[in-house]
Amino acid sequence: MRKVYLDNAATTPLLPEVREAMLPFLGEDFGNPSCLHSWGDVAREAMEDARNQVAQLIAADAEEIIFTASGTESNNFAVKGLALAQQNKGKHVVVSAIEHFSVLHSAKTLEKWGFELSLIPVDKYGMVSPDDVRKNLRKDTVLVSIMHANGEVGTIEPIKEIAKIAKEKGVVFHTDAVAVAGTAPVDVKELGIDALSLAGNQFYGPKGVGALWVRKGVRIIPFLDGGVQEGGRRAGTENVPAIVGLGKAAELAKANMASRTEHLTRLRNRLLTELPSKIKHVVVTGHPQDRLPGHASFCVEFIEGEAMLMLLNSQGVAVTSGSACTSRALKASHVLIAMGLSHALAQGSLLFSFGLDNTSQDIDYVLEVLAPVVDRLRQMSPLYAKFTKTSKGG
Amino acid sequence: MRKVYLDNAATTPLLPEVREAMLPFLGEDFGNPSCLHSWGDVAREAMEDARNQVAQLIAADAEEIIFTASGTESNNFAVKGLALAQQNKGKHVVVSAIEHFSVLHSAKTLEKWGFELSLIPVDKYGMVSPDDVRKNLRKDTVLVSIMHANGEVGTIEPIKEIAKIAKEKGVVFHTDAVAVAGTAPVDVKELGIDALSLAGNQFYGPKGVGALWVRKGVRIIPFLDGGVQEGGRRAGTENVPAIVGLGKAAELAKANMASRTEHLTRLRNRLLTELPSKIKHVVVTGHPQDRLPGHASFCVEFIEGEAMLMLLNSQGVAVTSGSACTSRALKASHVLIAMGLSHALAQGSLLFSFGLDNTSQDIDYVLEVLAPVVDRLRQMSPLYAKFTKTSKGG
Repeated sequence: MRKVYLDNAATTPLLPEVREAMLPFLGEDFGNPSCLHSWGDVAREAMEDARNQVAQLIAADAEEIIFTASGTESNNFAVKGLALAQQNKGKHVVVSAIEHFSVLHSAKTLEKWGFELSLIPVDKYGMVSPDDVRKNLRKDTVLVSIMHANGEVGTIEPIKEIAKIAKEKGVVFHTDAVAVAGTAPVDVKELGIDALSLAGNQFYGPKGVGALWVRKGVRIIPFLDGGVQEGGRRAGTENVPAIVGLGKAAELAKANMASRTEHLTRLRNRLLTELPSKIKHVVVTGHPQDRLPGHASFCVEFIEGEAMLMLLNSQGVAVTSGSACTSRALKASHVLIAMGLSHALAQGSLLFSFGLDNTSQDIDYVLEVLAPVVDRLRQMSPLYAKFTKTSKGG
Repeated sequence: MRKVYLDNAATTPLLPEVREAMLPFLGEDFGNPSCLHSWGDVAREAMEDARNQVAQLIAADAEEIIFTASGTESNNFAVKGLALAQQNKGKHVVVSAIEHFSVLHSAKTLEKWGFELSLIPVDKYGMVSPDDVRKNLRKDTVLVSIMHANGEVGTIEPIKEIAKIAKEKGVVFHTDAVAVAGTAPVDVKELGIDALSLAGNQFYGPKGVGALWVRKGVRIIPFLDGGVQEGGRRAGTENVPAIVGLGKAAELAKANMASRTEHLTRLRNRLLTELPSKIKHVVVTGHPQDRLPGHASFCVEFIEGEAMLMLLNSQGVAVTSGSACTSRALKASHVLIAMGLSHALAQGSLLFSFGLDNTSQDIDYVLEVLAPVVDRLRQMSPLYAKFTKTSKGG
């Protein structure tokens, strides 16, 4: 059976070059970077090289990069750490309604700590309006966190415009760029932002490593208390092999950005066009143009997404129905609901996220196996029976 | 030049079997365990196997194990999460004065959040007295956290006795067992404790992974907000390769505990005996008997530890002068100060931590190179000049 992995939004495979870069640090070069001896020196130098590579990916300074263990940790650190650092100034934070749960739930934790939270709505494409952000800024607003792109529907947000508004009001602006960094060009200076989260496993680097970029001069309270690693900003023995892998993945992403984008966009555009033409009652979710290169998302009416995943999996195809982080929660996506979709439609969400290894033949195969899967599930669907009856009757 | 690594307390190398177990998950088996497809299944099953292996190491139930990214994260999670979960009951926590900074600074963060903190002193061996813990328990005490053993001086604390006292008073008891788990036998039921932290890189497993064991029925507030991973207790894409490595390391540690302990204890005892006989004005730190198997720590009078490290490093010998997590802070160890040592003496601290690869020849070499290093540094030491003058004069 053909095996087609189309769940790169959940996690990407390691590139062989990334794995090769990591292997010495799983072997002889096992030192702890904090140690004042040659084993420590080797680890520390490799880690600082990686810090440069990650900084270059987003046009930042190396000393502004703090390594973390995941995008989730970066987001917890940013939202809680930036808000807490400014609580004497005010206790109001602003995030969008479609943030990843690591931002949204961190903001809700801030609420428990006495902060007020404003959620910015999105339009039917999942787009945040800069004007809505402006309207929600108050004198006591200390943090705005709006994601760079949404991992479930692919929509790229107008970060530069929002950052400008935040800056005018003197409010710190953080963006969760986990879905973007390493996949599309990011220039933190050009964007005019204050902090940015990224994660290695989103661009062919390892799991277990992420980074938080915080612009020099912006105060943040440490999230992990303990030793003086990362300039006292993030305690814990550094995960050197993963950090080295993240650095290599960043270097490769920057070097090959144009060709990768071209490849992924071609595949994505083909699926966005052809799937709705082959299968009835399918809605494209997310913005038609302003979306992540490798990202094609849909809602298939009258069907539960999870059943589709199972049947596609039995045909060797790996896709998802929303975010991997919530796939086991079995709730309709808060993103799709915020975009105004009905719960019933949101249940049928289907996300294809392409990677470097995918080919046009993969799309042929997916289109071939998906149609009978949808037919089969619709035949079992009471909602579909009702719909067809009504249609015939109408 | 001979290379002798004696800094296993900072981090251990990966065992080849651990690395082998990890490699597939840095290759083909790259799936995200949260995903509902075959790539996810492979990752999830491997992760659950690892959870069993870790549980067995400490005689716990697998479902009680929460994977984290480090011992530091486990300690932050435990101290903050256990205290916050009970803040309606009271806001007083008790920790020892010689805790790792990930416990101590987490407790200080709790102070900022309105908790009161009592620090338990230690005796000259770094030993906590259970009676002191008892005296510090109050009606509003909600958490006691005392480390299982101290990583700087090796002293093993009377955890079972302390846990019993906490239990009598209905207070949750956590222990930072990062220096012990995988190195000496741990049985959480036998100890009668509620929560325990451990870290992979302390027993030939990978960096970037730890675990927090929390006894079933004990409430804890999540530290990392976000997705529903780890039963909703710890968000973030799981670091599967590292988790698999941690599992394998736990399995090997359990299987080979007796022979490892015997090997390490023999080396440690030899150094504890011979070093003070070869070099004048050396004090053994930590408890003479109740100490970690591979752990020999000293203070060398009239010398700065860091200068010793540098000269030993130039001879191929890797040791440390306290905790790796604070080695760059260049302060006298809070552990040694709490044990009543003077700042001057604490500056001369020297920690040798043996590993599986070390041999008796390594000790021969260290003793051979250390004596001239100490002589050379003492010749440059104004303190030593003063001492010898006084001695001669006296």
